[in-house]
Amino acid sequence: MYVIEQARPVAMSLPGIEHATWVGHDDGLQQLSIWRQSMAPGTGTPPHSHDCDEVVLCLAGHGELHVDGEVHRFGADCTLVLPRHRTHQFFNVGEIPMETIGILGATPVVTRLPDGTELDLPWRS
Amino acid sequence: MYVIEQARPVAMSLPGIEHATWVGHDDGLQQLSIWRQSMAPGTGTPPHSHDCDEVVLCLAGHGELHVDGEVHRFGADCTLVLPRHRTHQFFNVGEIPMETIGILGATPVVTRLPDGTELDLPWRS
Repeated sequence: MYVIEQARPVAMSLPGIEHATWVGHDDGLQQLSIWRQSMAPGTGTPPHSHDCDEVVLCLAGHGELHVDGEVHRFGADCTLVLPRHRTHQFFNVGEIPMETIGILGATPVVTRLPDGTELDLPWRS
Repeated sequence: MYVIEQARPVAMSLPGIEHATWVGHDDGLQQLSIWRQSMAPGTGTPPHSHDCDEVVLCLAGHGELHVDGEVHRFGADCTLVLPRHRTHQFFNVGEIPMETIGILGATPVVTRLPDGTELDLPWRS
């Protein structure tokens, strides 16, 4: 399957996060997983890291990236760059849903809490 | 640098293609390179492959993907999935610029012509 229509994100068991996996291992890839997400105002992720590089394209909204003890504000038309193993958190600090495309340099994607425990994500990665 | 503003594509030495590298090896990544491109109506790429997985998000326009002896039409809101080493060509078959985000599962990216010759791209990858 070389051409796939892009799905809208839908509600997941993680509160405030809607998600659609656009492409990954199930589509014949070995190095890329791409996630379309929408995060509700006032919500955020737990601190976590991945065993692979991550890039987030912000399409709409206003967010904060917490990493290395620093807070970075971002908005639509920003690219977030997270080399692998970098513990980070995203927050929607605006008043509209924060729309993003998450690009991960592996598939499946390994996600870890700060103590190294592997986090079992509620979507295919 | 964790947050980068997204640049507009600019003219390159490849005819009909405007390009901006949004993120790659120079930004501290080892597994991802992301390219924003605009292809003029009536133009296309030569047949080529990459040594890594590639995913293309089509943002606007109408294109054709030629791969495996087949022609696949695509438009805005389509995702193209190209496992590594798959020789392919993109064409803009519409009347407006074809706007894409190219996501490559390596950085730098190795690009080859069908005879295996490495193609020297005119942008950082």
